[in-house]
Amino acid sequence: MHTHLLLIESPDAKGLVYKITGVLFRHGFNIVSNHEFVDATSDDRFFMRTAFNGDAPLQPLVEELRTLLPDAAIIRLAPSRKRPIVLMATKEPHCLGDLLLRHAYDELPARICAVVANHPTLEPLVRQFGIPFHVVSHENLSRADHESEVLSVLGVYNPDYIVLAKYMRTLTPGFLNLFPNRIINIHHSFLPAFTGASPYRQAFKRGVKIIGATAHVVTEELDTGPIIAQGIQPVNHAHTAADMAQAGRDIEKVVLAKALKLMLEERVFLHKNRTIIFE
Amino acid sequence: MHTHLLLIESPDAKGLVYKITGVLFRHGFNIVSNHEFVDATSDDRFFMRTAFNGDAPLQPLVEELRTLLPDAAIIRLAPSRKRPIVLMATKEPHCLGDLLLRHAYDELPARICAVVANHPTLEPLVRQFGIPFHVVSHENLSRADHESEVLSVLGVYNPDYIVLAKYMRTLTPGFLNLFPNRIINIHHSFLPAFTGASPYRQAFKRGVKIIGATAHVVTEELDTGPIIAQGIQPVNHAHTAADMAQAGRDIEKVVLAKALKLMLEERVFLHKNRTIIFE
Amino acid sequence: MHTHLLLIESPDAKGLVYKITGVLFRHGFNIVSNHEFVDATSDDRFFMRTAFNGDAPLQPLVEELRTLLPDAAIIRLAPSRKRPIVLMATKEPHCLGDLLLRHAYDELPARICAVVANHPTLEPLVRQFGIPFHVVSHENLSRADHESEVLSVLGVYNPDYIVLAKYMRTLTPGFLNLFPNRIINIHHSFLPAFTGASPYRQAFKRGVKIIGATAHVVTEELDTGPIIAQGIQPVNHAHTAADMAQAGRDIEKVVLAKALKLMLEERVFLHKNRTIIFE
Amino acid sequence: MHTHLLLIESPDAKGLVYKITGVLFRHGFNIVSNHEFVDATSDDRFFMRTAFNGDAPLQPLVEELRTLLPDAAIIRLAPSRKRPIVLMATKEPHCLGDLLLRHAYDELPARICAVVANHPTLEPLVRQFGIPFHVVSHENLSRADHESEVLSVLGVYNPDYIVLAKYMRTLTPGFLNLFPNRIINIHHSFLPAFTGASPYRQAFKRGVKIIGATAHVVTEELDTGPIIAQGIQPVNHAHTAADMAQAGRDIEKVVLAKALKLMLEERVFLHKNRTIIFE
Repeated sequence: MHTHLLLIESPDAKGLVYKITGVLFRHGFNIVSNHEFVDATSDDRFFMRTAFNGDAPLQPLVEELRTLLPDAAIIRLAPSRKRPIVLMATKEPHCLGDLLLRHAYDELPARICAVVANHPTLEPLVRQFGIPFHVVSHENLSRADHESEVLSVLGVYNPDYIVLAKYMRTLTPGFLNLFPNRIINIHHSFLPAFTGASPYRQAFKRGVKIIGATAHVVTEELDTGPIIAQGIQPVNHAHTAADMAQAGRDIEKVVLAKALKLMLEERVFLHKNRTIIFE
Repeated sequence: MHTHLLLIESPDAKGLVYKITGVLFRHGFNIVSNHEFVDATSDDRFFMRTAFNGDAPLQPLVEELRTLLPDAAIIRLAPSRKRPIVLMATKEPHCLGDLLLRHAYDELPARICAVVANHPTLEPLVRQFGIPFHVVSHENLSRADHESEVLSVLGVYNPDYIVLAKYMRTLTPGFLNLFPNRIINIHHSFLPAFTGASPYRQAFKRGVKIIGATAHVVTEELDTGPIIAQGIQPVNHAHTAADMAQAGRDIEKVVLAKALKLMLEERVFLHKNRTIIFE
Repeated sequence: MHTHLLLIESPDAKGLVYKITGVLFRHGFNIVSNHEFVDATSDDRFFMRTAFNGDAPLQPLVEELRTLLPDAAIIRLAPSRKRPIVLMATKEPHCLGDLLLRHAYDELPARICAVVANHPTLEPLVRQFGIPFHVVSHENLSRADHESEVLSVLGVYNPDYIVLAKYMRTLTPGFLNLFPNRIINIHHSFLPAFTGASPYRQAFKRGVKIIGATAHVVTEELDTGPIIAQGIQPVNHAHTAADMAQAGRDIEKVVLAKALKLMLEERVFLHKNRTIIFE
Repeated sequence: MHTHLLLIESPDAKGLVYKITGVLFRHGFNIVSNHEFVDATSDDRFFMRTAFNGDAPLQPLVEELRTLLPDAAIIRLAPSRKRPIVLMATKEPHCLGDLLLRHAYDELPARICAVVANHPTLEPLVRQFGIPFHVVSHENLSRADHESEVLSVLGVYNPDYIVLAKYMRTLTPGFLNLFPNRIINIHHSFLPAFTGASPYRQAFKRGVKIIGATAHVVTEELDTGPIIAQGIQPVNHAHTAADMAQAGRDIEKVVLAKALKLMLEERVFLHKNRTIIFE
């Protein structure tokens, strides 16, 4: 018996859960787990993630849902195949290496198609895992030309998600618009503290007692996209900025891996620059 | 408009959510939030907690649910009044004081009717909050006679829950059976580590790097009832057993308050010595 | 035998630890615990906290240290009496109540002389603990006049530290200068994120997954003084701003109590807007 | 200028810090950081870790210390070379892979000489990092014969430490005695809870709300050696034993790496089955 994943967001209306579970029931499906949330603080938007199993055809299910739910409802089934993703990186190996390891021993419900980097540093690490590695140097290129080269590589793989695993360049709105809500970044601070460059130096100067990392969806404005996951680690006065950076790496890799897993398992809905996460 | 809380547990069956939400829909109620869980690892038991609002009468709702759900289903509505509780203590003030404070400034959805203690030590603390205090000394009394005196005090208040806020005596099965699943205890360790007496001394001797506290429902066997909440705090070699005990107090009071709140908000279901908690 | 606490800060120099421990040795004192730190990242300032015991007179010890250490060294012995402190509050009882409780059961190495508030709300809570309560309403008063009235109350008690336990007014530089490095505040966010008013509303809007609280020494610029302690708690999309505030209270009271204890135990040195903390 | 590390443990005596820092001072060395601890709870044993720099010869320093300190004192200088270590594993890649990655990008102050496993599963992973891999299957071998074969491989590398990175076999006292206090293990639970096999199954059955992992020095009795580091992660009722195991992997790899780093940096002293850790 197959397990499927139904994902719905919609303006709220009376009886939505009743209607949706009714359609599943009539088509002979059995609900395995079910999460709903209504954003009562703003616009009463309704979100639902339902895992169900059964062997009936899925197309009629979705069609009947469309007739019963509000016109503005977004109804989709999660693809059952492993999602193709591309990782982008610069020179730091810790997040990239961690994702490659998890991929190698099948902890990620994704297929890493390739790694694209603007430096050749990480090529040996990536190649040893048997993953294609593409250097697209930004040197002597305009930003537009560089992104255009990156895009031509991405075009080969057509990834569902792009993961910025310590990719140290900002992306233009033009680029981002090609992958709306499909680019995930790890920021080396407990956002919204310490946006921008050198967050560990900032954290050191401010004398904080806890540092953090934030995985978020990339939007046009730097470091302000919807937050998927955050993690923290205590530090003290004996930590230099370099020590904090080192301590930060462990958080970064754990938080990025967690956020990616949540996205791949379709547990994340985006709404008004916030995330609804069904764990 | 009133908000109500519907609590159901039942053997699982196809279409349960559909049926239940259908009854709510037909009676004109609107679901505010909804949690379900099926224990697929053992006996497929189904648990559901639904907050809903509306002004229709509730009795017909429950009656229709009874006709539609499996005979073995347990269906109840949470009482809307503040739950009466009694706290039991011995000599330590930190958990007791914390609950009295929260009660005083209305952070607990409960009414503390009284405190019963087997020592007079805490009387001034309790009285200053205007709460009745009963000393039932265990000295020169058999266990049965002592519990019998405690019971006669409890009988006056008829509490929904009894909270053992560092009550340092074990209770007999006879006593416990009078309050099945209604007695909450705070144990000063990260259970199942360090059961029994002097857990901080044990933790010190074992040289652990993290200590904890565990709030649980009290069952006949000591320290093995269903766990509601746990908390932790790092310690190091410089902590003596006394330091660990001191560090432990902050965890204990936070964990006990959290567990009590979860119980009072009807977020806890008990199943096979485990808890299902809808947060 | 008495235990004493020696606190030294000084420009670093070769052999400082040797010289200091030598003086202690020659005066017949025994070191119980010892912490040193040199801020090698900036100006090589040296900090040392030494607990020692013995019954020899202390004055000659300090005098000999002064002759041996650099002229710029700051050498002091912690007073052995309980430190007098005054708490300031507005309307919220959770931090204040927690400190009053700890004080009542002797968990704080301090004597709470009084509570000063700009609202009468908390009077019953404070009085029940037998602590003097002074309302100094700010209504119809200029800021200068209000602070002047507060100062006249403080003058009665001459506190070593002032603890802002949710005192919701800013203090003028003039006021702060009277108590340099002796005013401790709890800020309801994980500083430097969400400075200013309504941090939980800000946290909610930003969709953070972890909220925090920060205890810091108060300096002229709002919310930017040296951080003493921070704590965090996970939140999720289902938390409203009010829920976050509620969740925040538990962190606030724990973090403020921790910071105050660190200060009272003379574990905190201030240096360049950062704290060195010997735990 | 070179930085060195002096490590001393000794029966406590008056003036130890004074004497030791005096020797350093007279030999022209400058203390960079200094930690001391006296175990006042049992036998007044003194521990000290001092980082110092200078270019004077080290032999005379140690010799003078020997003449001044109690006869029973253990005085040593940390070797300045990277410590050779061997990893042992069975089939699980997460801890092993994490250590190989950290080694590859120079986060570990050690040289991984080889990996020894009792299954061939992990060979490709290890080889891709260019590290020698030795399978020593235990099949059809007595425990003594198997350990003897492992020992002959270890003999080639003569490691300072052996890291059991999910090596799923117990070692005999005879084997352990060859590497006293030099074998580090990661145990997949929050010791002392859930010793022995299947800790996640045990954790699931007990219904705990937090799971953990423990890195410890291996001693003769299973799972009871001195604890170096522990970590935790919250779980809930929806986690199956398999989910808990998955959640546990992230903790295990972080905790093992942390413990190994502490050992390699000579921050760990062992005393009466406990660790003193200078962080």
